[in-house]
Amino acid sequence: MDAKVERALNELSATEIAAKIAAGEITCEAVTHACVARIAERDGVVKAFVNFDADYALAQARALDRGPSRGPLHGVPIGVKDIIDTFDMPTEMGSPIYRGHRPPADAACVALLRRAGAVILGKTATCELAGMASAETTNPHNPAHTPGGSSSGSAAAVADAMLPAALGTQTGGSVLRPASFCGIFGFKPTYNAFNKAGIKPAAESIDTIGWLTRSIDDIELLSDVLRMQAPLPPRKLTAPPRIGLCRTEVWETAHPETKAAVESAAAKLGRVGAMVRDVELPKAFTGLHALARGTINHFERAACMAFEWDHHREALSPQMRRYIESGQKTSRDEYVAAWRRVEECRALLASLFDGLDVLLTPCVPGEAPHGLGLTGDPGMQAMWTALHTPAMTLPTYRGPHDLPVGIQLVAQRYDDDRLFACARWIWDEIGAPVMLHGRL
Amino acid sequence: MDAKVERALNELSATEIAAKIAAGEITCEAVTHACVARIAERDGVVKAFVNFDADYALAQARALDRGPSRGPLHGVPIGVKDIIDTFDMPTEMGSPIYRGHRPPADAACVALLRRAGAVILGKTATCELAGMASAETTNPHNPAHTPGGSSSGSAAAVADAMLPAALGTQTGGSVLRPASFCGIFGFKPTYNAFNKAGIKPAAESIDTIGWLTRSIDDIELLSDVLRMQAPLPPRKLTAPPRIGLCRTEVWETAHPETKAAVESAAAKLGRVGAMVRDVELPKAFTGLHALARGTINHFERAACMAFEWDHHREALSPQMRRYIESGQKTSRDEYVAAWRRVEECRALLASLFDGLDVLLTPCVPGEAPHGLGLTGDPGMQAMWTALHTPAMTLPTYRGPHDLPVGIQLVAQRYDDDRLFACARWIWDEIGAPVMLHGRL
Repeated sequence: MDAKVERALNELSATEIAAKIAAGEITCEAVTHACVARIAERDGVVKAFVNFDADYALAQARALDRGPSRGPLHGVPIGVKDIIDTFDMPTEMGSPIYRGHRPPADAACVALLRRAGAVILGKTATCELAGMASAETTNPHNPAHTPGGSSSGSAAAVADAMLPAALGTQTGGSVLRPASFCGIFGFKPTYNAFNKAGIKPAAESIDTIGWLTRSIDDIELLSDVLRMQAPLPPRKLTAPPRIGLCRTEVWETAHPETKAAVESAAAKLGRVGAMVRDVELPKAFTGLHALARGTINHFERAACMAFEWDHHREALSPQMRRYIESGQKTSRDEYVAAWRRVEECRALLASLFDGLDVLLTPCVPGEAPHGLGLTGDPGMQAMWTALHTPAMTLPTYRGPHDLPVGIQLVAQRYDDDRLFACARWIWDEIGAPVMLHGRL
Repeated sequence: MDAKVERALNELSATEIAAKIAAGEITCEAVTHACVARIAERDGVVKAFVNFDADYALAQARALDRGPSRGPLHGVPIGVKDIIDTFDMPTEMGSPIYRGHRPPADAACVALLRRAGAVILGKTATCELAGMASAETTNPHNPAHTPGGSSSGSAAAVADAMLPAALGTQTGGSVLRPASFCGIFGFKPTYNAFNKAGIKPAAESIDTIGWLTRSIDDIELLSDVLRMQAPLPPRKLTAPPRIGLCRTEVWETAHPETKAAVESAAAKLGRVGAMVRDVELPKAFTGLHALARGTINHFERAACMAFEWDHHREALSPQMRRYIESGQKTSRDEYVAAWRRVEECRALLASLFDGLDVLLTPCVPGEAPHGLGLTGDPGMQAMWTALHTPAMTLPTYRGPHDLPVGIQLVAQRYDDDRLFACARWIWDEIGAPVMLHGRL
C-alpha cells in the first residue's frame, strides 16, 4: 500500500484522530460525521450496530468541539458491545428479554472512555447475552461469512472503518476470534486487570473486557485510558523478542491457512533476529481447552442465567438453553475439579515462559466459516482465557478465500505491556495489509 | 439455655423452618407472619430493612402454600442486602444516586434462592455502595453500637430474629465483621465460587457474596442451594480438626476480648482433642492487610465508580469520595505490585496449611464500637478476603460490654466443605449462647 494515499477520517486510527483534533487540524464533528457516513453507506450489509443515532453521535461531537480537551480520546468515536451498560443508550444484550432496557449508569469502562473525551458512537451487535447464538452481523470482507462472535458488531465495525476502536468482552474467545476473522487487532487483557462493573457476566471467573482496533498504538491508548493513567509512549523492546512457538493440542484441528499463518510467522521472525523455539505444553494442559469452554463456562452460565431461565426461558435461544442445561447437569465437584486443573496449569506458566517473552500460538482454526448461523470455534482461544493470561491477535495472513487469519500472542499474567512491545516488533516485521481499511 | 423452651417461628433456623413446612407442621404464611411481626416490633430501633412490604411478603408465602414444594428453602424467609439486584423490589444500594432504581432481573443468587422456594422478605440496609459510609442500622444487642458493615441490615436482621438468614457481600470484611459484631454466623466463600451476576461491584477482584445465619446447618443449606446442588448431609470430620493458631501481624491491635476469644478457643479445643499449633505467617505477608484494604480496594473502587464520580459526585459521601480520590492517586504500577504480592502469598498457602485443616485467627479487634458513624475496622478480615480463601465467623464470645465477639476460621481455597466440618466440630465444643435469639 502506498503510505501517501490520503485516508478518509473514518479510516484513521484513534491515535491519529486524537492527534489531529489536538492539533486543530480537524474537528470532532468532522470525524464523527465521516464515521456516520460510513455507517450509512455500509451498515445495511454489515449490520454492526444495534443502536445508533447519528444525530446523538454528532451532538456529542459538537459538544466536545465547544469545550476544552477532555483527555487523550477527545473526539474519538468508539463503539460499545451491547452487553456493556450505557446510561444514555439501551443495552439489549442481543436478547429479547432485555429489549428496551435502560441501565441507570455507564459501565466503568464506558465512563472512563467518556472521561477521556470519547464519543460513544453506538452499541454494537453481540451474540445473545455474549454467548454463541449469532447476531445478524456479517463479515465486512464477505457478507456470506460470519464475523465471529460474540463481539461481532465491534469487530465488523472496526474492520469496516465505521470507527477506529470498539469495546468487546471475552469469556471463551469473543474478542480474539472476531478480530481474527475480520482482520483487525484484538486484545484480551490479564483477568481482573480491567474493571467489569456494569457488564452482564457470562462466566465471571473468566470474563474480561477487551478491545478491537486497527493499530497497536490504539490497543495501547485504550489500555492507558482504562488503566486510569496518562498515555505512555509506545512500548518497545530493547532486544528482539524471545518467542515460544506453541502449537497446543488443538493444532491438528487447524486448517492449512492457520498452520501456514503460525509457521510462516515463526520462520520469518527467526530469520529477522527473534529467538524462536518450540514449546510443548506439559501433560496437565491436555483437555484444558475443553474444560474452559465446557465445564467452567457452562456451569457458571447456568448460575448467572438463573433468573432468565426461570422467568424467560422461551425467550432464550436453543443454543443458550443447551448451554444452561449442560451447566445444570455439571456437578459442583466437576466444576471445582476443572478449576483446580486450571490453577495447576496456571502455576506451571512461569516455567513454561522461562526465557521467553511471548508464546506464538494459533488463534482460530482458519478463515471465518461460510454462513452466519455459527460464529466459529472458540477452542484455540478458550484455554488462554481460562489461564487468565493476556492475549492479542494480529491480522497477519489471508486464507484461500482471501479472508483474514490472525495469529495469537500470549504473555504471562500482568505482562500486558511486554505483550504490546512484542506485538509491535512482530507487526513491524510481518505486518501484512489484510485489513480492509487499515493502510498502516 | 433450655433446649425445651418453645421458640417462636421467627427464632427457628432456615433448616428447621424448611423441615417443619415440609412435614406439614407449619405453613409458609405462618413463618412469614412471625417474621413480619418481629420486624414490626423491632425494626423501628434496629432499622435493618430499607425495603420491606409486609403484604407482598405474605403474598409470596401464601402463593408457596398453595403450590407443591419448590425446593429445599420452600417457605423460608430470606433477606437480601440492598446492593444485590431484585426484579420485584427497588435496589437502592444505600445511595441517593440509585433511589428508586428497579433492576430488570434478580441477581443470580436471589434467583437461585427463589428457585429453591425462598420468600424474599425484603432488602436489608447496606453501607453506601457496599463501602464504609454507615447505614442507619443499629446493633440489636445495644442500639448505641454499630452492627458493623457493610452488610449491616442483613447481620442485624438475622441477629434480631427478624428472619433466619440473609445474603451479604464482602470486599474487605463486610460479612464477617457485622456477623461477629451481631453475634451470628457469617460465611465468605472461596473467591469466584459463587456467582455475583447482578451485584454492584466494589472491588471485583476480591468481591464475594456471603451469608449470615444463626446456625451452621443454615450456612451449609444456603451453600448447597447456591451451588445448584441438592442439600448434602451435615459435613462432619472423621477425626478432630488440626488447627493453626494464626495471630497475624494485626494481633497487637486486638482488644483483650478478641485475644481472649481466640486464645480461650485454642486452649479449649486443644483440651478436647483438637491438634492446635501456632502458625507464623511468612515475611511476605507483612503489610498484606493494608494492601488489601487500601491499594487494591481503592484502585478498583476508583475505576468502578467512574460513572458516579463524573455524574453524581455531590451525591457521594465524604468517605466514598476519599476512597475514590485515594484510588485515583494510586498508580497502576502500585496496584499491580500489590496484586503480585497477594499472589505470592497465595502461592504460600499450601505450605502454610500443611498438616492443618483450618486456621483460627482473630475476626475483629473487639466488640462493636460505640456509635453508628463507623462500622468498625476491616483489618482482620481483609487479608483473607484478598487471599481468596473461604472464611467463617462463629459467635463464641462476649466482651466487657456484653457484646458479641466472634472468632474467624479460614480454610484453603475451594475447601469450603472442610471449613464447614471444622466449624461444626468447634461449635459443638465451644458454642456459647451469645446470640440474642439463637437458642441452639
